[in-house]
Amino acid sequence: MKNIYVKNTPLAKAKEKWQQALAKINFYNGAAVTELEVEKALGQVTGKPVFAAHSSPIYNAAAMDGIAVHFADLAAASEASPIRLGKEQFTPVNTGNNLPQGFDAVVMIEDVHYVSEEEVELINPATPWQHVRTIGEDIVTTELILPQGHKIRPIDQGAMLATGVTKISIKKQPVVQVIPTGSELIQPGNTPAPGQIIEFNSRILAGYLNEWGAQASGAAPVSDDKEKLKQAMRDAAKTNDIVIINAGASAGTRDYTSTVLAELGEVIVHGVAIKPGKPVILAIIDNTPVIGLPGYPVSAILTMRLFVQEMIYNFMGMQQPAPQWTTARMSRPIHSAMGVDEFVRVTLGQVGKELMATPAGKGAGAVMSLVRADGILTLPAGSEGVGAGEEVNIELLRPLTDVKSTLVAIGSHDNIIDILTNLLHKGEASIRVSSAHVGSMGGIMAIRRGEAHLAGSHLLDEKTGEYNISFIKRFLANTPLQLINLCYRQQGLIVAKGNPLNITGFADLANPEKNISFINRQNGAGTRLLTDKTLADQNIPTSAISGYEHEEYTHMSVAAAIASGSVDCGMGILAAANALHLDFVEVAEERYDLIIPKTFLDDPKIRQLLELVQESTEFKELVHKLGGYSLRDSGKVMFEQ
Amino acid sequence: MKNIYVKNTPLAKAKEKWQQALAKINFYNGAAVTELEVEKALGQVTGKPVFAAHSSPIYNAAAMDGIAVHFADLAAASEASPIRLGKEQFTPVNTGNNLPQGFDAVVMIEDVHYVSEEEVELINPATPWQHVRTIGEDIVTTELILPQGHKIRPIDQGAMLATGVTKISIKKQPVVQVIPTGSELIQPGNTPAPGQIIEFNSRILAGYLNEWGAQASGAAPVSDDKEKLKQAMRDAAKTNDIVIINAGASAGTRDYTSTVLAELGEVIVHGVAIKPGKPVILAIIDNTPVIGLPGYPVSAILTMRLFVQEMIYNFMGMQQPAPQWTTARMSRPIHSAMGVDEFVRVTLGQVGKELMATPAGKGAGAVMSLVRADGILTLPAGSEGVGAGEEVNIELLRPLTDVKSTLVAIGSHDNIIDILTNLLHKGEASIRVSSAHVGSMGGIMAIRRGEAHLAGSHLLDEKTGEYNISFIKRFLANTPLQLINLCYRQQGLIVAKGNPLNITGFADLANPEKNISFINRQNGAGTRLLTDKTLADQNIPTSAISGYEHEEYTHMSVAAAIASGSVDCGMGILAAANALHLDFVEVAEERYDLIIPKTFLDDPKIRQLLELVQESTEFKELVHKLGGYSLRDSGKVMFEQ
Repeated sequence: MKNIYVKNTPLAKAKEKWQQALAKINFYNGAAVTELEVEKALGQVTGKPVFAAHSSPIYNAAAMDGIAVHFADLAAASEASPIRLGKEQFTPVNTGNNLPQGFDAVVMIEDVHYVSEEEVELINPATPWQHVRTIGEDIVTTELILPQGHKIRPIDQGAMLATGVTKISIKKQPVVQVIPTGSELIQPGNTPAPGQIIEFNSRILAGYLNEWGAQASGAAPVSDDKEKLKQAMRDAAKTNDIVIINAGASAGTRDYTSTVLAELGEVIVHGVAIKPGKPVILAIIDNTPVIGLPGYPVSAILTMRLFVQEMIYNFMGMQQPAPQWTTARMSRPIHSAMGVDEFVRVTLGQVGKELMATPAGKGAGAVMSLVRADGILTLPAGSEGVGAGEEVNIELLRPLTDVKSTLVAIGSHDNIIDILTNLLHKGEASIRVSSAHVGSMGGIMAIRRGEAHLAGSHLLDEKTGEYNISFIKRFLANTPLQLINLCYRQQGLIVAKGNPLNITGFADLANPEKNISFINRQNGAGTRLLTDKTLADQNIPTSAISGYEHEEYTHMSVAAAIASGSVDCGMGILAAANALHLDFVEVAEERYDLIIPKTFLDDPKIRQLLELVQESTEFKELVHKLGGYSLRDSGKVMFEQ
Repeated sequence: MKNIYVKNTPLAKAKEKWQQALAKINFYNGAAVTELEVEKALGQVTGKPVFAAHSSPIYNAAAMDGIAVHFADLAAASEASPIRLGKEQFTPVNTGNNLPQGFDAVVMIEDVHYVSEEEVELINPATPWQHVRTIGEDIVTTELILPQGHKIRPIDQGAMLATGVTKISIKKQPVVQVIPTGSELIQPGNTPAPGQIIEFNSRILAGYLNEWGAQASGAAPVSDDKEKLKQAMRDAAKTNDIVIINAGASAGTRDYTSTVLAELGEVIVHGVAIKPGKPVILAIIDNTPVIGLPGYPVSAILTMRLFVQEMIYNFMGMQQPAPQWTTARMSRPIHSAMGVDEFVRVTLGQVGKELMATPAGKGAGAVMSLVRADGILTLPAGSEGVGAGEEVNIELLRPLTDVKSTLVAIGSHDNIIDILTNLLHKGEASIRVSSAHVGSMGGIMAIRRGEAHLAGSHLLDEKTGEYNISFIKRFLANTPLQLINLCYRQQGLIVAKGNPLNITGFADLANPEKNISFINRQNGAGTRLLTDKTLADQNIPTSAISGYEHEEYTHMSVAAAIASGSVDCGMGILAAANALHLDFVEVAEERYDLIIPKTFLDDPKIRQLLELVQESTEFKELVHKLGGYSLRDSGKVMFEQ
């Protein structure tokens, strides 16, 4: 029995139906009101308007340190004819003191000349009530301090306490339970066996819900048992203002959520024309909104932003804060699935004058793509996509100032980049590095498109045996740049621990009797070129290598594939083998350089990076720990144009 | 003994000296590192870089519900010649399932045609690893997830838990104690006797410090006793990362702070050329930074933002988030005190096309001015001020989108405006109202300068006896507008409870034997005109009224002055008398209208307001509770041009 009848309701229509359903159960402004001490009310939302209980100031108060006087006494004062005031005519006051009865002005201490303890001389006239904070100057009893539905800031607490308000009515935050479902779920702290998944979604979802103002908590996962699920949902709907089910919203064989929801209440929407997030379910059980979110973390978060975020604010009688937007230029085209509103995670980089947006990786399961993302691009249902260079509007996930001060590194991945990323971030300037691992050629192309401040590259020219330079001349002829060495590193065949198949080199891979499987790197990767040159040197046809067409994008993912046992070996760096406790058969030492356009050499971020590479002992120690590196030319300019 | 030797160190110099002193005690990156469970780490700052403990996914996983296949089996599939797969050739999989050994692709359930339970028919070829999340696709063991000094978001928690990280190193937040000083301080909940002040500063200051990432708490106030102060500071410096003293930083007779700090440690700076905030003290005791903030709440907050905010972030090894800025046009000139960096609180209003900035009230004691403020304008030491219409940069205290969606009301104050403010805010659209009470003429001028969406006005023409229209014709001749009635209200003499002086009208005030003191409203206030017309009608010269030159700006502040006993009577509305439980001698019923330029009549904010005025029974009930109002023409257009 496959439950594949998920509809494709357009987003606007789904929102409208959902809003109507929420209005019907009186969900807006649904928060109960309770009393709370002002001192504990920071971040809470006022449940009633707050009026001043007394005036501030509550008496006429000196606004300066000095003396209280009668202004009329000083009417004729001037430098030429100073006026002296005797004991009865003035009283010393400090700031905040009650103005003594009968006095009507204050003269600042700086302007008072004490002739004796009992007599002062003054050379300026005074105006009535000068330097006096008169009663109610700031606020008068019964005046409005805060309207209903206002989120309380520290200054608001101060204003309330200053005017005698110590207890106020606040709105109760919506109580939300996030229920994870799925027999495959295990708790964090356990290593997943094949088919098991660590249950972390409920933690992320509750975290966001709390940030928006809810009181959210996770629940123990419910296994894929229809009756258990039904019981859990029924119970949760009784005791919560909102219930989130994650997941079971899809069309898999054991996705009971929609069936159970339909049995318990009313399913308002099942399936929305959005990507990711299509299988979302919006339902009402016993006047409680129940939202079934898709299982993939990215889908779950994005759909929760679309459907639940506003609910939290509305429940409290507030407006959802408007998102922050920026315009940016697409660095590459995106093709859109027609008929759905598509939400694309992007990284942003201010490289040169333009803010460039680059898709941050696909895969709704890719949590890291959302960790790295700076914003979200919405492609509406009617759009076919966006062309390279087109201007787009991006909803920001990070302050624009942070984005603009980020160092953008695109190109070949090396573990040293992670070391530099951390050293720059923990340094005094807290420089953020955004890095994308797209291989050496990908890096060169990113420099050409103006997307990156620097590119890591180790492209071997088969003919000359030189690294990078011929590629720069071919693809970056018009870009003044420096090619600066980062390191030399050992490349070789990464093999299982103990090298059980006794692999000694590519010749073994070409031997059909040995039946050894290989995993390759993508076209444009420096390691791919090194593999190809090595095969050519040894006269081994690529067709003789089993798995030559199976491509991965980084050293680490090649190593991971070998560690998992799904392939026997692949080309990569020693550091990757060491990281996963694998063995390593050396093939060659190669050079790894940074390509940096000259316009960025004076950028403080680049200067900090080069300083680290050239001078930091911490950097050198961390690299040597990785193993397989030589820093003999680190920071040296290898080529310039 | 006056301690008036506060220096005037320029702000940049003061910051530089302070930074040097902090560097000397190794304050930067001073936070200790401690272990914490990832699940509890939301909002904390990483103390070390976080690396993936295992890959994600940790096995090759189905990315879709469907069947696992060998892609090679489907190479020849097409609509014309479908391919059938038998029992051994496919396995049903749900999203997230481990891809069974030997299979290398997944076909989506939607594309699978089940011929029988054991046989499927497919019409499309597959590519290797399609719909498979390969090992480490998202992140590979040992790769960097978060650098050191990163503030943890919900998505970061998810990424860590997903890759097997359950415990991390975080930085300990700086522990900050805020010590209020002053014998005049009393705790909230008590009504201040003359000379007493409610101690609320420490609450505001701790609130902001906590928002910035500190663990701040207030302490019991220390009275003005030098030895007690010394003991308190010595103790606090021992057990805290930062100590804040508030206040005693000024030059008053009992301001011991700087003396005590100099005795206990080193005073780095005392007195900075800023306004407000000049008397700030920056000191080091036993390697602990101790900051003496001025006593006025506004001064204390602004100087804390200048000197302490960055310290909190630096201590954690982070950069202070960049403030948000906007450009706006000044609605009126500001004259600056030369030689000091001046910080002016402003309200902002998007009225028409331009964002206008208006000073939000002076007075460093005015907490409400900071409650109302939308931003801060900095006038550097060299500046003489800013002219009306000049473009300025404003540091935002509120999101720009909130500011831009605010309804700006400037003019005469009436308690009904507070009622409308609250009803609009608690309504579905949560409309924020910013209102400034500057009298009726002030409102007309604000409309003329394009600063306000509406102005409340009750200007009586002495000659015609008409309200508002002749003033509109004179000052707003070129502005198409509607004059819409808000209410009629009783104006009269507000007198002490029980009317002890038996005041019956202005004639009594002009009687020198009765010796009655009066408090007036400012020039341009409708009430002032009504007073003047009444006096003229009764042939009483203004010189006969004692206190005629003593001006207040609102009904409520007039009433407050009478309630405090400092004057005997003043003209105002019945609602103000009622609010403070005073008595009232009726003089006249007057008309109070709203002036609304036609360009704003279609603004949803104005439409909501007019709808409330015309239709809301809640509005009518609340107004009638105030007393002294008639709503017989509410919402009626009285004049149009």
